[in-house]
Amino acid sequence: MAVIGAGYWGPNLVRNFQSSSAFRLRWLCDLDVERARRVLGGYSTIQATANLTEVLADESVQAVAIATPAATHLDVAMAALRAGKHVLVEKPLAASHAEGRQLVTEAEQRGLTLMCDHTYCYTPAVLRIRELVHGGELGDVHFLDSVRINLGLVQRDIDVLWDLAPHDLSILDFVLPPGVRPVSVAAHGADGIGAGRACVAYLTLHLNTGAIAHIHVNWLSPVKVRTTIVGGSKRTLVWDDLNPSQRLSLYDRGVDVAGPDELADDQRRDMLISYRSGDMIAPALGEREALRTMVEEYARAIHSGTPALTDGRAGLRVLSILEAASRSLASGGTMIDLDEEDL
Amino acid sequence: MAVIGAGYWGPNLVRNFQSSSAFRLRWLCDLDVERARRVLGGYSTIQATANLTEVLADESVQAVAIATPAATHLDVAMAALRAGKHVLVEKPLAASHAEGRQLVTEAEQRGLTLMCDHTYCYTPAVLRIRELVHGGELGDVHFLDSVRINLGLVQRDIDVLWDLAPHDLSILDFVLPPGVRPVSVAAHGADGIGAGRACVAYLTLHLNTGAIAHIHVNWLSPVKVRTTIVGGSKRTLVWDDLNPSQRLSLYDRGVDVAGPDELADDQRRDMLISYRSGDMIAPALGEREALRTMVEEYARAIHSGTPALTDGRAGLRVLSILEAASRSLASGGTMIDLDEEDL
Amino acid sequence: MAVIGAGYWGPNLVRNFQSSSAFRLRWLCDLDVERARRVLGGYSTIQATANLTEVLADESVQAVAIATPAATHLDVAMAALRAGKHVLVEKPLAASHAEGRQLVTEAEQRGLTLMCDHTYCYTPAVLRIRELVHGGELGDVHFLDSVRINLGLVQRDIDVLWDLAPHDLSILDFVLPPGVRPVSVAAHGADGIGAGRACVAYLTLHLNTGAIAHIHVNWLSPVKVRTTIVGGSKRTLVWDDLNPSQRLSLYDRGVDVAGPDELADDQRRDMLISYRSGDMIAPALGEREALRTMVEEYARAIHSGTPALTDGRAGLRVLSILEAASRSLASGGTMIDLDEEDL
Amino acid sequence: MAVIGAGYWGPNLVRNFQSSSAFRLRWLCDLDVERARRVLGGYSTIQATANLTEVLADESVQAVAIATPAATHLDVAMAALRAGKHVLVEKPLAASHAEGRQLVTEAEQRGLTLMCDHTYCYTPAVLRIRELVHGGELGDVHFLDSVRINLGLVQRDIDVLWDLAPHDLSILDFVLPPGVRPVSVAAHGADGIGAGRACVAYLTLHLNTGAIAHIHVNWLSPVKVRTTIVGGSKRTLVWDDLNPSQRLSLYDRGVDVAGPDELADDQRRDMLISYRSGDMIAPALGEREALRTMVEEYARAIHSGTPALTDGRAGLRVLSILEAASRSLASGGTMIDLDEEDL
Repeated sequence: MAVIGAGYWGPNLVRNFQSSSAFRLRWLCDLDVERARRVLGGYSTIQATANLTEVLADESVQAVAIATPAATHLDVAMAALRAGKHVLVEKPLAASHAEGRQLVTEAEQRGLTLMCDHTYCYTPAVLRIRELVHGGELGDVHFLDSVRINLGLVQRDIDVLWDLAPHDLSILDFVLPPGVRPVSVAAHGADGIGAGRACVAYLTLHLNTGAIAHIHVNWLSPVKVRTTIVGGSKRTLVWDDLNPSQRLSLYDRGVDVAGPDELADDQRRDMLISYRSGDMIAPALGEREALRTMVEEYARAIHSGTPALTDGRAGLRVLSILEAASRSLASGGTMIDLDEEDL
Repeated sequence: MAVIGAGYWGPNLVRNFQSSSAFRLRWLCDLDVERARRVLGGYSTIQATANLTEVLADESVQAVAIATPAATHLDVAMAALRAGKHVLVEKPLAASHAEGRQLVTEAEQRGLTLMCDHTYCYTPAVLRIRELVHGGELGDVHFLDSVRINLGLVQRDIDVLWDLAPHDLSILDFVLPPGVRPVSVAAHGADGIGAGRACVAYLTLHLNTGAIAHIHVNWLSPVKVRTTIVGGSKRTLVWDDLNPSQRLSLYDRGVDVAGPDELADDQRRDMLISYRSGDMIAPALGEREALRTMVEEYARAIHSGTPALTDGRAGLRVLSILEAASRSLASGGTMIDLDEEDL
Repeated sequence: MAVIGAGYWGPNLVRNFQSSSAFRLRWLCDLDVERARRVLGGYSTIQATANLTEVLADESVQAVAIATPAATHLDVAMAALRAGKHVLVEKPLAASHAEGRQLVTEAEQRGLTLMCDHTYCYTPAVLRIRELVHGGELGDVHFLDSVRINLGLVQRDIDVLWDLAPHDLSILDFVLPPGVRPVSVAAHGADGIGAGRACVAYLTLHLNTGAIAHIHVNWLSPVKVRTTIVGGSKRTLVWDDLNPSQRLSLYDRGVDVAGPDELADDQRRDMLISYRSGDMIAPALGEREALRTMVEEYARAIHSGTPALTDGRAGLRVLSILEAASRSLASGGTMIDLDEEDL
Repeated sequence: MAVIGAGYWGPNLVRNFQSSSAFRLRWLCDLDVERARRVLGGYSTIQATANLTEVLADESVQAVAIATPAATHLDVAMAALRAGKHVLVEKPLAASHAEGRQLVTEAEQRGLTLMCDHTYCYTPAVLRIRELVHGGELGDVHFLDSVRINLGLVQRDIDVLWDLAPHDLSILDFVLPPGVRPVSVAAHGADGIGAGRACVAYLTLHLNTGAIAHIHVNWLSPVKVRTTIVGGSKRTLVWDDLNPSQRLSLYDRGVDVAGPDELADDQRRDMLISYRSGDMIAPALGEREALRTMVEEYARAIHSGTPALTDGRAGLRVLSILEAASRSLASGGTMIDLDEEDL
């Protein structure tokens, strides 16, 4: 196989594909071949090249992993699909929903695997959250609140929404139970430092169940926070990704509302609300690298011919929300309905 | 003086007015006189009563502190003002902006002190934040992000916005430098548990400088978070109210944008953005009880005849935003312009 | 009843005895009567006095609580016992084991309650730890490590060992299961700042089971730490008293040693050691004030005529270890055997 | 150069020597050549071998890095020195002080670099601590308290003291200012789980200045703590290695003792002790990998012919304390004087 792109994320892909027994890594391709050589170092038998055509012409290459800038995903991935290669693409799937749809269609028509590297979905924490939510351990999801802030690299081509929110949106897509999906989105942001694009942004999503999801992404925070709360009718879960000794905390604390739903509104105001104050459980989690699990899922999808957990359609759903959020941001925070077909 | 209301907050007022040498506490008044007696305990010389008229007729009482439900603020405070008493009112100032305005007008016409107990403004942390922001230590404020979440008592009469956001809005009003003020507000919320009112809410405020302020209030979180980030052009400040050993952290870290402002937008996208990574300073703060300082400020305002730091007009500004936020919430998150006269 | 001593701790006793329906507080006695008056404030019906004789002569006073300096405990408590009063004494029980023994003997001969205010034992956390250890939830206790450090008031008359270690020693005494007790103690310390007494000290206790207990007390630490780890054969418990949202954490993680104990030493070195990596549970705890529970226990002991949970003999056991630790400290860290009769 | 040993630590050395432009890595040598091959992976041009003689006979190899078990350090390192190679040895330098001395003597006689991989000394945090202490920023060091506890792998051949305390002792050796050194050591420990060796241990070191250093190492703690406090007469420093966003905190808080030292003891008890409560500064630190800096220091030492910052003599000093600590542990905690010549 081949990794395409030797920038920020490429070296992580190279390292993990090298460790996998399911793949044989032959090429690292980057327009800047010196950069590719530096990534491989002075002791590697993998070939560096700047020539994508050469890589795609190599018949021993059956799969590629693409970690180039989002604006190039359509061209690079389409070329790979047309050369009959399975494709893994860095998030976001493409620069727009329309471009992403072309890739999905092409892959489906050719019967090739198209997978989106939504890395966070393969962390032990998120896999467990999905299990807990799908398994009903939390009950109905009432709210999901995600904060992803740090002193981040202000990107040249995309705002903080497109840079960071794909993580949270892909996680949301991954953990919500079947049938639960966002129906509208609003986004607010600010460009405090005059960077020409939003450096701080807030997304609000309304779900078809009446629940709310909210995402705070921020490049300007001197403190790093990566915390997600998933509030459910039975339990509430807190994921603190920066606390390796206790990433997940499952609280049996909450508020119960007693009384029938058929009551009139003013009666409901007086009904009994009781408080539960139970124990907290922090489930033991392994510390497996997410990319290793992601690489295994890519191998599984290719060999079985079934969609990856984070397939192209998952990438499309994320793009659909990102585009709506951008429209909302541009319009000063209008709530934008999401197209049901896309989700 | 007299304290009116012996519910959740009244005992704190009683304790602090007792400790103050500037006041002589004579009455604790509550419709439920047994509750007032329980608050005073079996060893007190202060009189409990259910009769507000009796209290207001006592000529030795020159000032009152009102900690009754918001819906009663207009009647109780108005009666006190008409009896010639100085008035301190629990937040929010009144149940509506219109009611609050009546109190402000009445107090101004009578030359009486009308103060709003925006308690957080008198914590050592917030007093220091105000000093830092007003003194220019942070530079221009780019964003303010406040999170106030906990497993809270679901209120019978008000939603989480009216219950918790007054704290954040009063702090915002207190620390923003002169001339900087919110111009519009949007609010999103959800009532996950069927309580009949929002239990989770997000407020976004746009300021007249282009900066953004955002507030997350939540009754359903099993973890307690009370953190505010104030991002500035020179420094960024983090206030973690639950970390007594390091409530304030002042970061000399951030992002600088170099290059002239007169550049065209597409040029600005390419200009140099540099990163500062400096030391962090956690200023030493005393651990003085906020209510003690608040009581002193009430005494100072009464004796000097000058407005309190958190006077009736500050209370009105908070009400103005709360009402607009409620309208936004009801309309599904529309951005509502704030009336400049109110702010 | 009467509280004697209006210094650092006295006001807390006054407040809690006032709140208790089991006692009627009549006197606050202090050699400095002005200090007593300040503690009571301007609204109290309790009498302040500097005259202990007057208090002890008051027949309506059946019990006293003593919060005077340790050096005066013998005289004050003995006078109270001889006047037929039940006695609660602030920790440590007395300035020496010999003095403490006189008090215990006197109280036992007169059939009066003698209780030591080992406040920490009445916190919800320590009560639960006792329950967990006594109930076998942790299995055999292997080690107990306690850290109590802070920027503390350097005391005039006692070193950091006598100031802070009584807390940890009383907790140790309280939570260890019946039959498990310290058999020897060593202490190391330093007086970095030239205060004339140890400001930093480390205590090591060997228990009769082969387990080890270790205590670090320190007046010179700019950070506050109050953490105790109790390592058991089945589970290990961490008590972080400064984390109100998660004071207790019960870990199902640890090391198991398989294989028979009768193996020779060199065989044991090769036997299988396996690792458990289970969930963590943070039990829900109430936030009840410890002194309130302590006051109730005093009332219970008096009315039932049975020993308090932290009776005079518990106070004696703590004194016995403190004296041995002081001898060890003076001798440069020699391990001192504890007299079994004392424990 | 060559790396010898492909166990726990070897892969880290391989990775860092590969990244260094100062070395050309040719061999990875391990008795288990399959293990060496697995470490190199399927894409490496480095040779795996089980034959040390072959490696040492390779004239292009001028330096080796040894990460084999401590018991083999003498043989492997001596062979390398006799073959004229510069030697870097994993901590501890050797299995005993006597063995370590042989290595130091051999290297000095041959004019070869002998360096001990005291990795922690090359972390940005410890390098900064050394700078602060040597530069007088803390004033005189009064106490040093180090806690290194975790659920650790119970070692077959060594106890927790020899496994973990070398880290703390090498750091102590590295940061103490010239002329300040330990003069005696006591150690207490316990083998709760019947592992045949201490799994929990406490070391107390008395320094020639009257200061105290204390180290807690523990394999049985379900929570991971790596915190060191260095208390000084001017400032106190806290190093929390598990808090990447604030590893170092420098407190301007502390206790001052006023008054002349010539006072009699009982007078000193009454002298004025004052408290400072200043700001805290968390210096910005880079996040450079320690091993990278260590590798550079190895290159520097070889090329300049001057001793490495953590040379063989530093390794010897650590061994000297470890051996005395083991004697103390075996004798039940006796304070053992350290041989001044060794330190």
